[in-house]
Amino acid sequence: MTQLEKAKKGVITPLMRRVAEIEGVAPGFILEKIRQGKVVIPNNIKRNIKKPCGIGEGLKTKINANIGTSKDEPDLKKELKKLKTCIEAGADCVMDLSTGPGIPKIRKAILENSDVPVGTVPIYEAAINACKNKGSIKKMTENDLFKTIEQHAKDGVDFVTVHCGVTFESLGKLKQQKRVTNIVSRGGAFLVEWMVSNNKENPLYKNYDRLLEIAKKYDVTLSLGDGMRPGCLKDASDSAQIQELVILGKLAKKALKYGVQVIIEGPGHVPINQIASNVVLQKKVCNNAPFYVLGPLVTDIAPGYDHITGAIGGAIAAAAGADFLCYVTPSEHLRLPSLKDVKDGVIASRIAAHAADIAKGINGAMDWDIELSRARQKRDWKLQKKLSIDPEKFEEYRKSSSPKEEDVCTMCSDYCSMKLVESYLQD
Amino acid sequence: MTQLEKAKKGVITPLMRRVAEIEGVAPGFILEKIRQGKVVIPNNIKRNIKKPCGIGEGLKTKINANIGTSKDEPDLKKELKKLKTCIEAGADCVMDLSTGPGIPKIRKAILENSDVPVGTVPIYEAAINACKNKGSIKKMTENDLFKTIEQHAKDGVDFVTVHCGVTFESLGKLKQQKRVTNIVSRGGAFLVEWMVSNNKENPLYKNYDRLLEIAKKYDVTLSLGDGMRPGCLKDASDSAQIQELVILGKLAKKALKYGVQVIIEGPGHVPINQIASNVVLQKKVCNNAPFYVLGPLVTDIAPGYDHITGAIGGAIAAAAGADFLCYVTPSEHLRLPSLKDVKDGVIASRIAAHAADIAKGINGAMDWDIELSRARQKRDWKLQKKLSIDPEKFEEYRKSSSPKEEDVCTMCSDYCSMKLVESYLQD
Repeated sequence: MTQLEKAKKGVITPLMRRVAEIEGVAPGFILEKIRQGKVVIPNNIKRNIKKPCGIGEGLKTKINANIGTSKDEPDLKKELKKLKTCIEAGADCVMDLSTGPGIPKIRKAILENSDVPVGTVPIYEAAINACKNKGSIKKMTENDLFKTIEQHAKDGVDFVTVHCGVTFESLGKLKQQKRVTNIVSRGGAFLVEWMVSNNKENPLYKNYDRLLEIAKKYDVTLSLGDGMRPGCLKDASDSAQIQELVILGKLAKKALKYGVQVIIEGPGHVPINQIASNVVLQKKVCNNAPFYVLGPLVTDIAPGYDHITGAIGGAIAAAAGADFLCYVTPSEHLRLPSLKDVKDGVIASRIAAHAADIAKGINGAMDWDIELSRARQKRDWKLQKKLSIDPEKFEEYRKSSSPKEEDVCTMCSDYCSMKLVESYLQD
Repeated sequence: MTQLEKAKKGVITPLMRRVAEIEGVAPGFILEKIRQGKVVIPNNIKRNIKKPCGIGEGLKTKINANIGTSKDEPDLKKELKKLKTCIEAGADCVMDLSTGPGIPKIRKAILENSDVPVGTVPIYEAAINACKNKGSIKKMTENDLFKTIEQHAKDGVDFVTVHCGVTFESLGKLKQQKRVTNIVSRGGAFLVEWMVSNNKENPLYKNYDRLLEIAKKYDVTLSLGDGMRPGCLKDASDSAQIQELVILGKLAKKALKYGVQVIIEGPGHVPINQIASNVVLQKKVCNNAPFYVLGPLVTDIAPGYDHITGAIGGAIAAAAGADFLCYVTPSEHLRLPSLKDVKDGVIASRIAAHAADIAKGINGAMDWDIELSRARQKRDWKLQKKLSIDPEKFEEYRKSSSPKEEDVCTMCSDYCSMKLVESYLQD
């Protein structure tokens, strides 16, 4: 039985207890939220996850780090290093988005080595195999696709992105729209190519029940992908994107009824003033299913700094109710991320999530800030370092520029404001 | 006459025309906004600024970069390099916050070499001179302080931070408050030390008219400083901060009447869910005077990454109506910034300002994003580079990881979604 089915029966599982403990909430709270489809715990029945997590309403905002090879950068070892880096930096989940050679091998290695839930996008493997073995994506059969998804489930993948909302209906909207950037989802692009060249509806939509069966068997959480997500600010919140969301809302309800855990993927690239509306709309249309946003980036003009454009959008989205942030690295739009990019992406995303948790009023979120601020007032540099999100970076900065007096820093030296007034504020 | 006095008389000055041209608005619009106190153009009558700027309602959000020495890092040459770096990176204004030896020499060098408006905080020099020459800040006379301010004005400083709202009234609120971090404004701290040890009211408040006279004579814009700003999230929006804001509102109205341009400084450290309220309150209480926020940082736990916590807060504040963002560098709370920190701080702040300008609906802001996105869809890498906020960084990333096919990048290689579907979306 899936966690959702157990929740429906009122059974508090060890996994629910574990998540409740991590979150500092009652196990019954977790059960109730799962039952309502407002929280998921991605955990394949084949996996024993050291650091499981709950994602959804009332819980800390979680973050995901994408890793995986590409054709131009196919080194498995490097990706395993990235896995280690992103877990050490505090990612709650990772996704293997490999498109280089030997996808199954990489997936298995990541599953073996990951302490956190692992997600994949099976259409990549299915489409790439069709290209390699049959000459084109067109020749991928529906069965090829479902068999690949089932293989991922068997291997222990905890959540899969499935672009079920890429249908002729949403594609029609996209064509009318005359977008600036057409499709920026790889999975969405593969499916559109397949659909148009075969003139057949998306199997993930048409045979959604088959997908639900696989997901139920292994308790794989379905992450309903947004193949129609905007690839630039101008295309944000357009009818193609919203049409797809409406379809995903319908499918999310069906999954909930069927006992399959589901989350909804969201944009992408969104102007600041449209972010909260996007979150409200998703929650309404999708029955409050957890919302997994990809950024969103709040401007298109900053390649090389998209961890920052993504952190701005992610913080605003999460403060408005988004539950799960996909990290964006500085290398987005430019190259496969390096190890340093992965770390920078995770930290930026964690900052966004934590800042949003304070705004959301998540239990205990502000305590961390208070504790560090008290250490700052006391000029207790050891404690500040220990409490900071990246103690290594803290140390590096502090060491590079040493003050003569140990209890201050070189910004103000002994004109440290907090120090200056200390004796004058005591009554 | 000041720009404000001329605006009151209905005279469109060459400077107003220049700013109108830069902003793409009518000169009459600038005149009207200055007349109402909603826009300022910081430009000392003694200076001929190559890149002047207007700050306030209806204009592009501007950013300021703080540079200047400290006792531990007193190298003038390094600070002049920072000046060059921050102007090249796109700062609209700079402030010289030097507290190391030889403050007048540094100020003059920065004024000579700056293409953009220059601000200072004269209390630093006055207080430090009192420490050096008389043994303590306590011995600074009121005249010492005003003479220093006048010297800055004579030297050509375009705007000065004056902490006029640090009074016994706001200090009383601060003491009642039992803050986590007491005072994090250096200027505020110097004044509190002076006030408490002499048991005398803040001269900048008591003799505000003398300040207005100096400002009027040289058309120095007053930046009413927030000495009571919160130094951590827990202290945000507390009664000390708001009490000071109320005082500044009164003083802003007086300045407007007197013909002196004025802007209001704001926090600091603020949780995401309090930022918009802070902006609305400032605009209301201060008669829509331009709002100059210092960040704000949306969490305290990320030393080493405060350019990101500041960009999140700055983007949200500016989208809500803040007009002027003080950059924050990664070295905030840790050391005097390095050259790299200065560049990273300026870029992060510009990203925040631009993202907010799109949300604010500033004329033409989104055009930049559309242009770059069109180049992205075409995989025109040269044009993307040219249009990106930091072409050097773009080049560095792209060169470090070269795709086999030139029209894609190593993230997706030839599985580039935009490329994949191109032929399938043509009707």
